[in-house]
Amino acid sequence: MMKRKVCVVVASRANYGRIKSAMTAIAEQNNLELQVVVSASALLDRFGRAIDVIQKDGFEVSAKVYVVLEGETPTTMAKTTGLAIIELATILENLKPDVVVSVADRFETLATAVAASYMNIPVAHTQGGETSGSIDQSVRHAITKLSHLHFPATDLAKQKLIELGEEESRIVVVGCPAIDLLLDLPPLTQEIFGRTKGAGQVPDLSKPYILVVQHPVTTEYSMARRQIEETLRAVSTLGMQTIWLWPNVDAGSEDLSRGIRVYREQGKKDHIGFYKNFSPGDYATLLKNAECIVGNSSSGIREAEFLGTPCVNIGTRQSGRERGENVVDVEHDKSQIESAIKKAVDHGRFSSQLLYGDGTAGVKIADYLANCHFRIQK
Amino acid sequence: MMKRKVCVVVASRANYGRIKSAMTAIAEQNNLELQVVVSASALLDRFGRAIDVIQKDGFEVSAKVYVVLEGETPTTMAKTTGLAIIELATILENLKPDVVVSVADRFETLATAVAASYMNIPVAHTQGGETSGSIDQSVRHAITKLSHLHFPATDLAKQKLIELGEEESRIVVVGCPAIDLLLDLPPLTQEIFGRTKGAGQVPDLSKPYILVVQHPVTTEYSMARRQIEETLRAVSTLGMQTIWLWPNVDAGSEDLSRGIRVYREQGKKDHIGFYKNFSPGDYATLLKNAECIVGNSSSGIREAEFLGTPCVNIGTRQSGRERGENVVDVEHDKSQIESAIKKAVDHGRFSSQLLYGDGTAGVKIADYLANCHFRIQK
Amino acid sequence: MMKRKVCVVVASRANYGRIKSAMTAIAEQNNLELQVVVSASALLDRFGRAIDVIQKDGFEVSAKVYVVLEGETPTTMAKTTGLAIIELATILENLKPDVVVSVADRFETLATAVAASYMNIPVAHTQGGETSGSIDQSVRHAITKLSHLHFPATDLAKQKLIELGEEESRIVVVGCPAIDLLLDLPPLTQEIFGRTKGAGQVPDLSKPYILVVQHPVTTEYSMARRQIEETLRAVSTLGMQTIWLWPNVDAGSEDLSRGIRVYREQGKKDHIGFYKNFSPGDYATLLKNAECIVGNSSSGIREAEFLGTPCVNIGTRQSGRERGENVVDVEHDKSQIESAIKKAVDHGRFSSQLLYGDGTAGVKIADYLANCHFRIQK
Amino acid sequence: MMKRKVCVVVASRANYGRIKSAMTAIAEQNNLELQVVVSASALLDRFGRAIDVIQKDGFEVSAKVYVVLEGETPTTMAKTTGLAIIELATILENLKPDVVVSVADRFETLATAVAASYMNIPVAHTQGGETSGSIDQSVRHAITKLSHLHFPATDLAKQKLIELGEEESRIVVVGCPAIDLLLDLPPLTQEIFGRTKGAGQVPDLSKPYILVVQHPVTTEYSMARRQIEETLRAVSTLGMQTIWLWPNVDAGSEDLSRGIRVYREQGKKDHIGFYKNFSPGDYATLLKNAECIVGNSSSGIREAEFLGTPCVNIGTRQSGRERGENVVDVEHDKSQIESAIKKAVDHGRFSSQLLYGDGTAGVKIADYLANCHFRIQK
Repeated sequence: MMKRKVCVVVASRANYGRIKSAMTAIAEQNNLELQVVVSASALLDRFGRAIDVIQKDGFEVSAKVYVVLEGETPTTMAKTTGLAIIELATILENLKPDVVVSVADRFETLATAVAASYMNIPVAHTQGGETSGSIDQSVRHAITKLSHLHFPATDLAKQKLIELGEEESRIVVVGCPAIDLLLDLPPLTQEIFGRTKGAGQVPDLSKPYILVVQHPVTTEYSMARRQIEETLRAVSTLGMQTIWLWPNVDAGSEDLSRGIRVYREQGKKDHIGFYKNFSPGDYATLLKNAECIVGNSSSGIREAEFLGTPCVNIGTRQSGRERGENVVDVEHDKSQIESAIKKAVDHGRFSSQLLYGDGTAGVKIADYLANCHFRIQK
Repeated sequence: MMKRKVCVVVASRANYGRIKSAMTAIAEQNNLELQVVVSASALLDRFGRAIDVIQKDGFEVSAKVYVVLEGETPTTMAKTTGLAIIELATILENLKPDVVVSVADRFETLATAVAASYMNIPVAHTQGGETSGSIDQSVRHAITKLSHLHFPATDLAKQKLIELGEEESRIVVVGCPAIDLLLDLPPLTQEIFGRTKGAGQVPDLSKPYILVVQHPVTTEYSMARRQIEETLRAVSTLGMQTIWLWPNVDAGSEDLSRGIRVYREQGKKDHIGFYKNFSPGDYATLLKNAECIVGNSSSGIREAEFLGTPCVNIGTRQSGRERGENVVDVEHDKSQIESAIKKAVDHGRFSSQLLYGDGTAGVKIADYLANCHFRIQK
Repeated sequence: MMKRKVCVVVASRANYGRIKSAMTAIAEQNNLELQVVVSASALLDRFGRAIDVIQKDGFEVSAKVYVVLEGETPTTMAKTTGLAIIELATILENLKPDVVVSVADRFETLATAVAASYMNIPVAHTQGGETSGSIDQSVRHAITKLSHLHFPATDLAKQKLIELGEEESRIVVVGCPAIDLLLDLPPLTQEIFGRTKGAGQVPDLSKPYILVVQHPVTTEYSMARRQIEETLRAVSTLGMQTIWLWPNVDAGSEDLSRGIRVYREQGKKDHIGFYKNFSPGDYATLLKNAECIVGNSSSGIREAEFLGTPCVNIGTRQSGRERGENVVDVEHDKSQIESAIKKAVDHGRFSSQLLYGDGTAGVKIADYLANCHFRIQK
Repeated sequence: MMKRKVCVVVASRANYGRIKSAMTAIAEQNNLELQVVVSASALLDRFGRAIDVIQKDGFEVSAKVYVVLEGETPTTMAKTTGLAIIELATILENLKPDVVVSVADRFETLATAVAASYMNIPVAHTQGGETSGSIDQSVRHAITKLSHLHFPATDLAKQKLIELGEEESRIVVVGCPAIDLLLDLPPLTQEIFGRTKGAGQVPDLSKPYILVVQHPVTTEYSMARRQIEETLRAVSTLGMQTIWLWPNVDAGSEDLSRGIRVYREQGKKDHIGFYKNFSPGDYATLLKNAECIVGNSSSGIREAEFLGTPCVNIGTRQSGRERGENVVDVEHDKSQIESAIKKAVDHGRFSSQLLYGDGTAGVKIADYLANCHFRIQK
């Protein structure tokens, strides 16, 4: 029998963590053939070259395509998306997949949905129907409207998709594939830091630490520098051992990086280690064992809920996203952040409610793609 | 006082007819400054160079940009959209408008919405919330999710926008600007044919005629040739005097054009005149005085309802669109088409129900843009 | 042993005819692997889809890429080149060839040379060092300066390359690969017309005929229409049976096509058949048996010299190109053209001087690529 | 009288320094109108945003356009060029200049020449005919072949242009416009460092210092890191006060930057100040007063010859370039570099031979453009 060709487009390190288990399951399905396209920040050194991890994990890359325009302004974000559409169209023309999987809500993801849907190739979208701030919100729903199959993470998200006018029969709640990676985490060891590049103090994992991940909010573009400084000052005052992840490629990230760099050059870096990238597995192990995750990463709300790690969520980036009792929300304010971290660390771990899935999302996606009927007209 | 800069992107001859009255009203508003960007098929000879009409109508063009990839396949449609995003981003960066108006639902229109919304420029969208077939449906709703202000044509469309999750306070029902152009139509004269280029028989407007406008349906790409042939055969058998408009630039239009060309070369063209383009005014006059409009143009449902002209609507392209009693739906079938045209011509004109507005849409849009508060975060 | 990967980019039907014999020889070489990329007008229906011929000839296509912007203005020619560079870069990144072969002098060919040379992939260029009019002249020499290996057709061309500053050791005179296709031409039969699409009168090959091929000259852009009309009027007056090839995709070709179309609609088409495309083999057979070739195609100077067919060369497009005694030059003037055709037909065939090679160019290219030492720094 | 529109495309900080005096002279010419397009690295923070200097110098910017693809690989260099062609074509279409000035030999400059020449807009090229290493050599000559007017800096360069086949009547030796900026340099003051951003030790200009500027060599892409380290080690051992300029945007510059960053983090930075950018004037003042310039910048050969500053030129990047007695050439070798710097500093200043002009190049260019006859066909 002819295998169905499933093309997964990985555009960032976050994308990869959120689709890896599905990629594995697709590759193992007898009647599916996996095509992997790697693009955007997943190819860039500055964002930790997810492509190296992808290849090390044993996936064969069908095509790679550089599309990120330098500048990190809203203008270059738009142009990056346009370039991604042009080149993905050519790649899809040559790979001829039966279905394209587009992951979550990043601005580059819209490019995948536009290219494939215009080309009459069915689009399967993961993590649709969720609510959050930033332009991600608009982009996520726009992708939904261009997609033909939906794999939302939660029942609430499914309801939202139906409200958005999608047919119930094309929606399958599977949980979040990123949760799948949390099932068999390796023990926490110092070797993690041998597998990545960092700056500043190398953390001692036999002692307690907190994890900070703070991305710029594109609709609050001009405030990125001040926002990161509030967090830096709070973390600095607390003096706890800290692992800090470099921000992603959105408009504003240059300002944010500069804030961090200036801070580092002031020499107050004895208790903070700065890192650009961990493999999804290493990141999850670090998250599982952290006293607390701080910032505005969705992993503080999704993965941390499953793992029971307390989360101090800052600002509007995750506003509206479903959350468990592990999350406390604060504003971009040094004293609010500082006090929330203290309380979270004092409280300690939470129990998991499986809000974002039970660890079988990837297999469910692969099974469905192997057996479903594809349809283009919505 | 600083004038608000309103940028209108015109991507096709159809776009122009649907926004012209708003452009006029914006240009006349004291505190608005109109910027006109002309792109895509609006620049192409093959699609009647709407830009010539725009300039003749007295509008100054701020920028023009060629973005249409040759090939007319789904792949080139996607690439055209990507290229439009790239170049519109640069144009918007240089023009710095306060708001961008994106028109209706064509695939190039999504490019305007993506570029502007990513660049944190508010997007005002006309004709959102409507229902139809083809990829236009997905694209229209995706544009809605990227837009900040909505100017739908009907109350039903407004309800759909609210269902799609848009805030009621950002939605203003104005009617369709294309209807505005129908208020003071000039009398029907043969001079219309002196203002355009055609092939085949020049129609005699002192005698009855029907109007045919049939576009390819992108999700039924491979059937474009057969679909046009059914209509050609029906019209040919009827033998009524016919004015036939060349199809637009969607995937499939090359096949469609070829169908027409082959037919013409068989010499059976004595009662049909083929035309690429009329000015919006001339088109409306022709529509108003036709015995019947045949094909799948939305003008058969929208403008024809206001004008009272009977419409034979073929196939799925307009499925789901609100319609008045002037419309009868048929399939791509020679005998169904033929018999429906006969009945429509026998019935004669209908009375207007103002389903798509009362002719003041353009003024309402300009007034609202002049006075509203813009907001980026949705 | 690892095979050397040789990537040939075919951008038009003319490109293909000029590289086909080398492609065959490369594919047959033990230590070479052929990669074929098809782009630009070679994919377009309007220019005879050379890709269909390429695949029918048994070549496997590694990638195809649509890059032609619609409009046929100098602006869209430039943009087409830019888009080709972007996409070829991605394709070369993924195909990883050891050498790229760029063919002749078309504007899309420069894209190949820019992409490959910037990427430190050696560029082998055929037909460099020749002289002609139009922008081809500038483009051809610019490609030479970006190339690392040169396969000129003639000794004079080699001298020109040395004058241009290229190292003699990197230049191998091989003749023109298009000549190779002329060695074993099949007999002339009516079946040729069953393998292509035409309009107007189907020629009767048992009777004498002339062949017309006239392309627009980009630096004389605005005169394309008048230029074609002079030729049309001359051919029309002569009344000889004529096979007329549709022009290529340069700026101006739309005007040229319109001139032809208007002429055809005036009904004077009884002795002319218009064709978009022939396979290289069929074209050569037609050229070999024609009374005369008329227009400004380089085949009138190159292939016709080998075949001994008289050539009436019109205007500046081939000015400066090495030519044999079969060529007479005239201006864009109806009476000059008419009288030159008459004389050429009266004179009859010429003997061949092997000015552009002896029919072994393809094999020589493949042999050299299989054994040479590649070097990037010039 | 209608003014001639002269469009200057500035693509990098180096470009600006090499055309600024011509821009000033063009703006002051009565019958010329200056259009300034700013693109590529001239817009990027990481390369010192030349646009800010341009605007501060009083030039009005007609359009700016982001085109640099992230990645800094040969692939992204090619794609950047392609994107620049696409967008410059649109900008030129809208600005409608009578002539386009393209500056020197950077890879983005080829984009200007391709876009303009394809669009039948005459291209005036500065600094053609020179010889150097890297891909700049091929690119410079390719630009020459696409250009219509040549403003070389030296008589030797003019001879080379003639050898390359350019008509002598289209070549005007004017000297290098960068030299013009050296005529009235302000005195050396510490305020220079208040006008730019640096890292590491702020130099004390009352004491002797050397200047280091080392760019990656694209054809030696993989060696960039090692090459910079040899220089770093030499400079470090010498222990002289040093002003070090960050490298430009070529492929390889990321590696080079990383080498510098690693070095800085090793703490050995007490005598080196790292800077991203100076205004052309500040740079020239620093160069004039330096004990010696070290690296592979062409300013060490051109400007330093005029100013009499000793130059230690490293590696192949400037090989073949005309040079005065102020230059000594060494390989990428720590001890060669170290010993050459010592000797240069011991020797002290040289006298100027006006090899690259007498400071009137900008005025000569403007005068010629104001009065010449433009011609497209070469």
